[in-house]
Amino acid sequence: MGLSKKDILDIESLSSDEIRLILEAAESFKEVLGRDIKKVPTLRGKTVINLFFEASTRTRTSFEIAAKRLSADTINISASASSVQKGETLSDTVRNIEAMNSDVIIIRHPASGAPHFIAKRLKASVINAGDGSHEHPSQALLDLMTIKEKKGKIEGLKVAVIGDIAHSRVARSNIHGLTKMGAKVVLYGPKTLMPKGIDRIRDEGGRMKDEVKKGSDSSLIPHPSSLSVASSMEEALSDADVIMMLRIQLERQGQSLFPSVREYSRFFGLNGRNISLAKKDAVIMHPGPMNRGVEISSDVADGPRSVILDQVNNGIAVRMALLYLLAGGHKDGIAH
Amino acid sequence: MGLSKKDILDIESLSSDEIRLILEAAESFKEVLGRDIKKVPTLRGKTVINLFFEASTRTRTSFEIAAKRLSADTINISASASSVQKGETLSDTVRNIEAMNSDVIIIRHPASGAPHFIAKRLKASVINAGDGSHEHPSQALLDLMTIKEKKGKIEGLKVAVIGDIAHSRVARSNIHGLTKMGAKVVLYGPKTLMPKGIDRIRDEGGRMKDEVKKGSDSSLIPHPSSLSVASSMEEALSDADVIMMLRIQLERQGQSLFPSVREYSRFFGLNGRNISLAKKDAVIMHPGPMNRGVEISSDVADGPRSVILDQVNNGIAVRMALLYLLAGGHKDGIAH
Amino acid sequence: MGLSKKDILDIESLSSDEIRLILEAAESFKEVLGRDIKKVPTLRGKTVINLFFEASTRTRTSFEIAAKRLSADTINISASASSVQKGETLSDTVRNIEAMNSDVIIIRHPASGAPHFIAKRLKASVINAGDGSHEHPSQALLDLMTIKEKKGKIEGLKVAVIGDIAHSRVARSNIHGLTKMGAKVVLYGPKTLMPKGIDRIRDEGGRMKDEVKKGSDSSLIPHPSSLSVASSMEEALSDADVIMMLRIQLERQGQSLFPSVREYSRFFGLNGRNISLAKKDAVIMHPGPMNRGVEISSDVADGPRSVILDQVNNGIAVRMALLYLLAGGHKDGIAH
Repeated sequence: MGLSKKDILDIESLSSDEIRLILEAAESFKEVLGRDIKKVPTLRGKTVINLFFEASTRTRTSFEIAAKRLSADTINISASASSVQKGETLSDTVRNIEAMNSDVIIIRHPASGAPHFIAKRLKASVINAGDGSHEHPSQALLDLMTIKEKKGKIEGLKVAVIGDIAHSRVARSNIHGLTKMGAKVVLYGPKTLMPKGIDRIRDEGGRMKDEVKKGSDSSLIPHPSSLSVASSMEEALSDADVIMMLRIQLERQGQSLFPSVREYSRFFGLNGRNISLAKKDAVIMHPGPMNRGVEISSDVADGPRSVILDQVNNGIAVRMALLYLLAGGHKDGIAH
Repeated sequence: MGLSKKDILDIESLSSDEIRLILEAAESFKEVLGRDIKKVPTLRGKTVINLFFEASTRTRTSFEIAAKRLSADTINISASASSVQKGETLSDTVRNIEAMNSDVIIIRHPASGAPHFIAKRLKASVINAGDGSHEHPSQALLDLMTIKEKKGKIEGLKVAVIGDIAHSRVARSNIHGLTKMGAKVVLYGPKTLMPKGIDRIRDEGGRMKDEVKKGSDSSLIPHPSSLSVASSMEEALSDADVIMMLRIQLERQGQSLFPSVREYSRFFGLNGRNISLAKKDAVIMHPGPMNRGVEISSDVADGPRSVILDQVNNGIAVRMALLYLLAGGHKDGIAH
Repeated sequence: MGLSKKDILDIESLSSDEIRLILEAAESFKEVLGRDIKKVPTLRGKTVINLFFEASTRTRTSFEIAAKRLSADTINISASASSVQKGETLSDTVRNIEAMNSDVIIIRHPASGAPHFIAKRLKASVINAGDGSHEHPSQALLDLMTIKEKKGKIEGLKVAVIGDIAHSRVARSNIHGLTKMGAKVVLYGPKTLMPKGIDRIRDEGGRMKDEVKKGSDSSLIPHPSSLSVASSMEEALSDADVIMMLRIQLERQGQSLFPSVREYSRFFGLNGRNISLAKKDAVIMHPGPMNRGVEISSDVADGPRSVILDQVNNGIAVRMALLYLLAGGHKDGIAH
C-alpha cells in the first residue's frame, strides 16, 4: 500500500488515512535507525534536492540525513548561491533541476504557495519544507508521531498551541493535522499574533477556513468543535495533554505586534509555575530553535516532560517515510 | 580506447575525434540514466572536487550529480568560504586540494586561463567549468550532444549564435566545437558585443585566431569559411538548423554596450515572429539562465522547437563522460 | 585495542600512548589511501557532522574526505547559515544535531573551550577542529605523523616553532604533542606575539602551565627542560631537525603587535639564507595557508626540504584514524 500522491505540500490536503500511513512508515524507519548500521538501500540511485530559499539548519540537515539513510544522493542548493540572483524565474530554476534527473525536490521558500506552484509544473515529487506563513507539513507529521509515541494516541487529547499563531506555518500545519487525527486544539497568544477573525471561530466555525486554507478541498477544514481559542493562558493550559509552544520571532518586536520580551515571557511564556495547570503527564513540545527565557523557560525545556529532542529525532524517521513513500515504493518493503 | 588527456580545459585543443569519443561515452551514460537505478560504481573511491570561484547553481549541481551517479565522492568548495580570503595563492590552494588525494578538480574562475594555470601545476585532472570570457567546454559538449541527438548529425548544419559574443565563454567554446564538427556557424549581436575585428573575419580569416585563442595549436582555429558574421537578424536566422541564443548579462547595460532592454529584445531577441525565418524543424537552444522577454520570448522558450531542457539533461551525461574518461578508464567498461 | 575516549578535544589531555595509537592507525589508513579504490566500509551508516563556526577550506575538506573514505555520511553546517543567527544557544544547536542520530560532531569555533563545553553535554563524539587560540589537535597529530615519517622518530629531535606563538592553536597543540613524544621544542617570535610570561620559562618552568593549560591534568604540562624560548632566529634555527613556521595573521598588523610585513619577513621569516643554520636534513613545515614572502620565502616553501604538502596528505590519514577510533571500533579491523 502506498501514498497515491506525487507531492507533500501541506497537511490540509492529506486525509487522516494518509497521515496514518506516513506515521506507520516513520515508525518502521525509526526501528531501522536503532540498528548498528542505520542505512537501507531503498533509494539508491535516486537524487534528492534540498532547494532552500531561506536559511535553515535543522530542517535542511534533517532531510539530508533522512535521504542519506535511504542511500539517496543529496544535493544542497541555497538561494544565495543560485541562479535566482541572475534573474531566472522560480519555474525555470526548478525545471532545470528536474531536468538533471532529480527525483524529489524539497523546497523552503518565503512565499506561501511556492511549493504548490512548482509541484504543478514538475513530474518530480515536491516536499514543502516550509512556505512563508502557510504550512510546514513534515514538522506537523513529526509532532504527530511524537504525540502518538508519548501518549499512545492522538484522538481525544487536548493540545494547547501557544504563541504567534498568525505567522506560524508550524501552527497552521499542526492545526490541520491534530484536528484530522481527532485531537482538540486550543490556541492562545497575543491578540495581535492571532489570525484575523479567529476570535469569532466559536461562533462562525467556517471562518477559520478563510485563514488557514490554501489547498483545494474545503471539506478538510477542521470541524469548529475541535478548534477553539482560549482567552487566557490558564484556560489554554488547563487539563492539556500536550503543550506546543511556538517560537516567537524577536524581529517582530519592532512591529509592535507584541509587548516587550519581558512582558511576552510573563503573559505568554511557559514556565515552572504555569505548567502545573496542565495534566500531570502533559508533554511539552517546541519546534525550535528555542528562545530560552522568552516563550519557554529553561527548567521546562530541559525538564522531564519535555519531548523537544524526541521531536528532532522523530523528524529523521518522518522524513525518511516521506521520501520513501514518494520516491521509493519498490515492492520489497522498507528495510532490506 | 580512452582520452589521452589529463585535463579538459577548452574545446580549442580537442580534436574532432576526441569530441566524438566524449559524445559517444555521453550517449552510453544517457542510457544508464534511463535505468531504474541510475548509478554505476565506476568511480567508487575517487574524489571529485567542485572548486567554484564564481556562484553557479546549474553547472556545479550538474557536475555534482554526474560525479555521484558514478559513485565518486564529491566535495564542494566555494571561494567565499575558502582560504583565498586568507591571502593564499591559487596555486597553493589547488596543490593543497590535490594533496588530499583528489582525483579530479572542477574549477570555475573569473580569470580566463586559470584552469590552464592550475592544470600545469597538478597531477590531478582539471576540468574547466567556465573561465572568465574564455571557454566553458562542458557546455559546448552538451550542446553538441543535443544537436546530434535532435538533428541526427552536426556536419553541414547552419547554427546561428546570437547575442553577446564578445563576453560569452559559451559562444567561444561552441564556435570551436561546432566548426570542428563541420557545422557552419553564423554569429550575430550588437556591434559592441562582438569580438573586436570579427567584422573582418570573412576577409582575413585568421583574425578570429587572435580573439578566441588561448590554447596552443593554432591549426585548430576554425576555417574561415565555416564561420561568418551576419549583418542582420534576418541573415542570421535565415535557413538556420539550430538557433543558439546567448544570455544577455543585464548588468552590462550600465556600460552602454547595448541599448535598452526593450531595444535589445526588439533587435536581437528571438520571438514567435522572427523564428519563422529559420528552417521549419530548427531547434532552439539557450545555455540558461534565461532572461525571458529579453533575449528569448516565453512562447519560443516553451515552444515545441525548444530543446533547452534537453541541454540540461544531456549535461549530466556529458559530465559523467568527462569524469569517466579522465578518472575512470578501467577495462571493464562504462556500465557495470 | 581502542581509544578509551569519547572525544578528541586537545593534545594536552592525550597520553603519549594514545598519541602513538592514533599515529599507528593513521599509518594503516595511509596504506589504504594508496590503493586503487581508496575507500573502506568501516563507518557505513554513521553520520559525521562538520559544524564550522569559522570559515575553513582545508580542515573542513580534509575531515569531509576522511569521513567519506570511511563510507560515513557527512553533513556540513556552517554557522552563517545556521540557527545561531536565530539566537539559539550553542548547547541547543549541538543537542539538536545529536538528536538526528549523529555519531561524530567535528566543531571549529572562535571561542576557546567551546568543544569541551559541548562534549560534556553530548553522548556523540566531539572532535575539536580548532577552538580560538586554544588547540587544534588534528593538526598537531598530522604534524607528528609527518615528522615521524620523515625523520623516523620524534624523540630527541629539536623542533623550532617560529611565529605568532601567543595566538596560535597550532603551536599550542604541537608544544603539547612534541614534548609528550620526547622532542625538544624551541619557540621564537616577536615579543608581542609570545605568550605572556613565557620569557621566564627557563627559570620558572611551570609558568608555561598557566599559559597553555585548558585541560585538567596538570601533570601533562611539558617538562620545562623540553621547552625553551630562543632569543634570536639564529638560536632557534641552529641545529634544528624540524622547522615549523606559523602563519602570521596579517590582520593583526593594525594592532601594532608586530612591525611592518617587510620587517616581520626580515627578522622572523624563513628563507634560503637562514635555513642553512638548521641541520642539513631539517624538514620545513607550515600548517597553511601560507603567506609567501612573509613568514616563509617561496624558494623554501617549494624547496626539497619542504614537507608542507606531506602534512596535508597525512591530514586525511590522521582524521580517518580519529573518526575510526571514536566511531568505528568494530572487531574486524581497519581495512576490510
